[in-house]
Amino acid sequence: MSPKITTELLKQLRQVMKNPKYVQEPVQAYIVPSGDAHQSEYIAPCDCRRAFISGFDGSAGTAIVTEQQAAMWTDGRYFLQAAQQMDSNWTLMKMGLKDTPTQEDWLVSVLPEGSKVGVDPFIIPADQWKRMSKALRSAGHDLVPVKENLIDTIWADCPQRPCKPLITLGLSYTGVSWRDKIVALRSKMAERKVMWFVVTALDEVAWLFNLRGSDVEYNPVFFAYAVIGMNTIRLFIDGDRMMDPAVREHLQLDSTLEPEFKIQVMPYGSILSELQAVGAGLSPKEKVWLSDKASYALTEAVPKAYRYLTPYTPICIAKAVKNTSETEGMRRAHIKDAVALCELFNWLEKEVPKGTVTEIIAADKAEEFRSQQKDFVELSFATISSTGPNGAIIHYKPVPETNRTLSVNEIYLLDSGAQYKDGTTDVTRTMHFGTPSAYEKECFTYVLKGHIAVSAAIFPNGTKGHLLDSFARSALWDCGLDYLHGTGHGVGSFLNVHEGPCGISYKTFADEPLEAGMIVSDEPGYYEDGSFGIRIENVVLVIPAETKYNFKNRGSLTFEPLTLVPIQTKMIDVSLLTQKECKWVNDYHQTCREVVGAELERQGRHEALQWLIRETEPLIRVQ
Amino acid sequence: MSPKITTELLKQLRQVMKNPKYVQEPVQAYIVPSGDAHQSEYIAPCDCRRAFISGFDGSAGTAIVTEQQAAMWTDGRYFLQAAQQMDSNWTLMKMGLKDTPTQEDWLVSVLPEGSKVGVDPFIIPADQWKRMSKALRSAGHDLVPVKENLIDTIWADCPQRPCKPLITLGLSYTGVSWRDKIVALRSKMAERKVMWFVVTALDEVAWLFNLRGSDVEYNPVFFAYAVIGMNTIRLFIDGDRMMDPAVREHLQLDSTLEPEFKIQVMPYGSILSELQAVGAGLSPKEKVWLSDKASYALTEAVPKAYRYLTPYTPICIAKAVKNTSETEGMRRAHIKDAVALCELFNWLEKEVPKGTVTEIIAADKAEEFRSQQKDFVELSFATISSTGPNGAIIHYKPVPETNRTLSVNEIYLLDSGAQYKDGTTDVTRTMHFGTPSAYEKECFTYVLKGHIAVSAAIFPNGTKGHLLDSFARSALWDCGLDYLHGTGHGVGSFLNVHEGPCGISYKTFADEPLEAGMIVSDEPGYYEDGSFGIRIENVVLVIPAETKYNFKNRGSLTFEPLTLVPIQTKMIDVSLLTQKECKWVNDYHQTCREVVGAELERQGRHEALQWLIRETEPLIRVQ
Repeated sequence: MSPKITTELLKQLRQVMKNPKYVQEPVQAYIVPSGDAHQSEYIAPCDCRRAFISGFDGSAGTAIVTEQQAAMWTDGRYFLQAAQQMDSNWTLMKMGLKDTPTQEDWLVSVLPEGSKVGVDPFIIPADQWKRMSKALRSAGHDLVPVKENLIDTIWADCPQRPCKPLITLGLSYTGVSWRDKIVALRSKMAERKVMWFVVTALDEVAWLFNLRGSDVEYNPVFFAYAVIGMNTIRLFIDGDRMMDPAVREHLQLDSTLEPEFKIQVMPYGSILSELQAVGAGLSPKEKVWLSDKASYALTEAVPKAYRYLTPYTPICIAKAVKNTSETEGMRRAHIKDAVALCELFNWLEKEVPKGTVTEIIAADKAEEFRSQQKDFVELSFATISSTGPNGAIIHYKPVPETNRTLSVNEIYLLDSGAQYKDGTTDVTRTMHFGTPSAYEKECFTYVLKGHIAVSAAIFPNGTKGHLLDSFARSALWDCGLDYLHGTGHGVGSFLNVHEGPCGISYKTFADEPLEAGMIVSDEPGYYEDGSFGIRIENVVLVIPAETKYNFKNRGSLTFEPLTLVPIQTKMIDVSLLTQKECKWVNDYHQTCREVVGAELERQGRHEALQWLIRETEPLIRVQ
Repeated sequence: MSPKITTELLKQLRQVMKNPKYVQEPVQAYIVPSGDAHQSEYIAPCDCRRAFISGFDGSAGTAIVTEQQAAMWTDGRYFLQAAQQMDSNWTLMKMGLKDTPTQEDWLVSVLPEGSKVGVDPFIIPADQWKRMSKALRSAGHDLVPVKENLIDTIWADCPQRPCKPLITLGLSYTGVSWRDKIVALRSKMAERKVMWFVVTALDEVAWLFNLRGSDVEYNPVFFAYAVIGMNTIRLFIDGDRMMDPAVREHLQLDSTLEPEFKIQVMPYGSILSELQAVGAGLSPKEKVWLSDKASYALTEAVPKAYRYLTPYTPICIAKAVKNTSETEGMRRAHIKDAVALCELFNWLEKEVPKGTVTEIIAADKAEEFRSQQKDFVELSFATISSTGPNGAIIHYKPVPETNRTLSVNEIYLLDSGAQYKDGTTDVTRTMHFGTPSAYEKECFTYVLKGHIAVSAAIFPNGTKGHLLDSFARSALWDCGLDYLHGTGHGVGSFLNVHEGPCGISYKTFADEPLEAGMIVSDEPGYYEDGSFGIRIENVVLVIPAETKYNFKNRGSLTFEPLTLVPIQTKMIDVSLLTQKECKWVNDYHQTCREVVGAELERQGRHEALQWLIRETEPLIRVQ
């Protein structure tokens, strides 16, 4: 990787920072956050402004450019990458290190008195604006919204904002019509006494209208906002996507409808003025509901007294609890995904010993097998295909410079998933194609024990996922081991592979309680720097649990694995498993064999079926 | 219980609420929080103002009196008690129920426009003031500090503020001199660049100066404040306690000392004016460190720009990590405490079948046996002595109206502890003096499994206690059972039986990480309303753990039980224990037998020794 030369770009940016065409008054500093106007985790190329100005294209980072300096804040995952991708115009600010100043402190230390600091109000979430603005004001400076994005003004070959065709999802996939979702949303609004709800997250717009898109890689979403009133529906979306007859019919745009279900389609760019008009017309007690992570621009459009902000929107919460059509779809998707992985692992078992399979080839092969499955749309995230020491890099993605050849001497970790029209998958398996060492097996078995401890956990209704996190670590902790990431995240239904409001992590204390129908991942791991990585990940569905007693009639919950891919028994040190854990593995493999076996049979994939049968032989535990 | 008649008192209070002698302008409402000027958990009789005005004497509750109404907010533990203790002048506001208004909302709904709401600024913590004040201001009212406590003005026979003699603790108890504690504190102050530290919590003053008192029942503290500068020490304390030669010598009041260790003794009541003087003399960058739970009065004495507020003070954190002298003292105290309980349980075993032992008699007997032990000072909290259905009332304290006779047919739960000069104890044992049912044994065994899961847990350095809470519940959860309280709290060293900043609870997310030397309780339970209560509580010391591996050289921790009282094996269903759990019980009992047995022998308590030997027979687990 050679760094991007940014001297000229920074010069241009500093010019527009004082160009009255773009700024009312010159700004002495300009902040370039990562992220888009919807606070998306994955962003479109046109939104990669921080990467454009600096060269650094990691997933997290904030650039600040002043008249004299340019600085980049990023976290430990990206210190090396940022240092390699940025030229000497940039100072790397290593977040998490003791001596690294915060953005506010740094600005205060370098700015001349009474400075203006500019930022695109659409890109900065309202809560971040508030914190930054307060800190600057107390030091005599001002944070100011700069309407036109200054990076866009100097980005000559900026890619177009994607505007790809939409997919309509029928009731068999969604279980609930968009009309019924609107009705449910309005009832939540009535409960909280709000008159308007502003949908800002892309997956929430997609879910609400039972539409999908492909504007952002891996996430089947499209650029849009919506504003839902008690009697009106406004959808802000660009392009000729609304000319598609299927979409028009799906949204009943040409039907005679009760006025409260009539969708008014408006340009994407008109959200601000429309919301300002709504804000201006409010009478006392007419509140507007927004996520507290919505952009400063949209939040400010509503007068403060009328704002109703919550960390999780009612759509976010409703979307997390999957209905029967969605869980059935997820089951189907996971069976197809398992078929693809049985094919892949069977293929790898034969090919790896030849020494011709690289991490990239393996990842491509996984995609090839997945793409053969019905309703396959795309991958759900960049495949982590890593062998040996690369496996210890938790967010690794193979590129030609790092691409390693799989061998019978190293552990191979594959974390991958796909978007199918009926569901989203995300599965990690750790395999050895030769003979694992006793130590590798020992570590693998601790990780497996943690995986089972979560998957088989029974817990009361109302329990938050973070209370289960330690179960996944206990076996590792007993031996002085651990892993430095959370245990699980929410998974969308043919939507984002990471979604709120639930999860399993020692860090997440703002998570909502787990409920039957929620879907999360269960993915403990162990990583030894420079040697190997182990992770065992299933996507699991929260289901009611039958218990002997029922304290205060609260009811209990547990998990059902949706992922049905064998866990390599060769890697298990059976002597470390309890009888209960051993039974869990055998029952799980029995289910894989029956359910996935039937589908392999149906698809005529006999060799993969033989592989599945071999890999699901029961463990025998000697007492 | 008959309610307190408050008509006359409320009339008097409403008069002083508009008496210019006490208020600058009439106040239309007056708030009476529970609590004292130090935000203590246990308060002195003179601080029981809310109980005086209302009759309700539970540990938690806030009274608000307006010109027309009087209302009391309290939580679920006290709904019944408050209803019984208050007359019809009072409206009970049941906190936690959906329709119960907050204090702010209620005030806004009943107050005439532009009202003043008064409160004693010494009793209300700064953060509560802020919230309340903001809510009232946005509705056009004002929260105003009323310097003179209005309850005190009408409380004719208000008890004197206690001012009991002090106990000095030598190095053999404390391990560190007060001078060295001041040096350490000043180094923490220098690290944070603060010039002053205000000690407001009573146990922090006591700990800092290696002094103890008896101004508050159960807590060996005394009324005082301290203000520590980089070169000055001011101790605010009343009475002739500083005339005691032992105290003078301990504090070196009459010695020639370096000026920075010279203690200036000042009247308790002068803290506010002295702190205001400090505040007025500050130059920029001279910060004053206060707990964010300090009173509004003291917090306001420091101009906002100079305040440095933290949830936990450096004293709170240093106090939690016990040094060798303190842990050795705690060990001694727990051995003596175990001797007393062996005597008690041996006595109960003989007496209960006669039907003459009530809950109160048993509690008194426990105190009697404890008081025979060396360095016994007082109990560390009101003994919970409860049998049968009373055991299910988690914060039960036997009174004549509820006093139940122990029998061979009911479970008996004893949660008790003492203050010894060398340590503080807190232990719960659940016993059956006849034959427990299979169901009672089953529940007891789940609780025991939870107790062991925490006590034997191994976890990385830096782990917060709340991450261990689910370990205590897992066995109960598996069967659909649970308990509705946290699993553990910090324990002081001859100080408060409840102390921060660590604990083990699903609720505590602001806890500090566990460190070797910290001491917490481990007390899971199970409560069946109307039938029985089970709790197994040990006080445990955080110690380093040896592990097979050592991930990132972080090191591991585990717990060592300080409490050494047999867990009744009669209550255990051995078939529900794993081999590891069974071994834990047997090892624990072996330690009890050896350590406590030697002390019983030394004290010539032969009958209790025989009881101990019987009760510590190893469990035999049939595979």
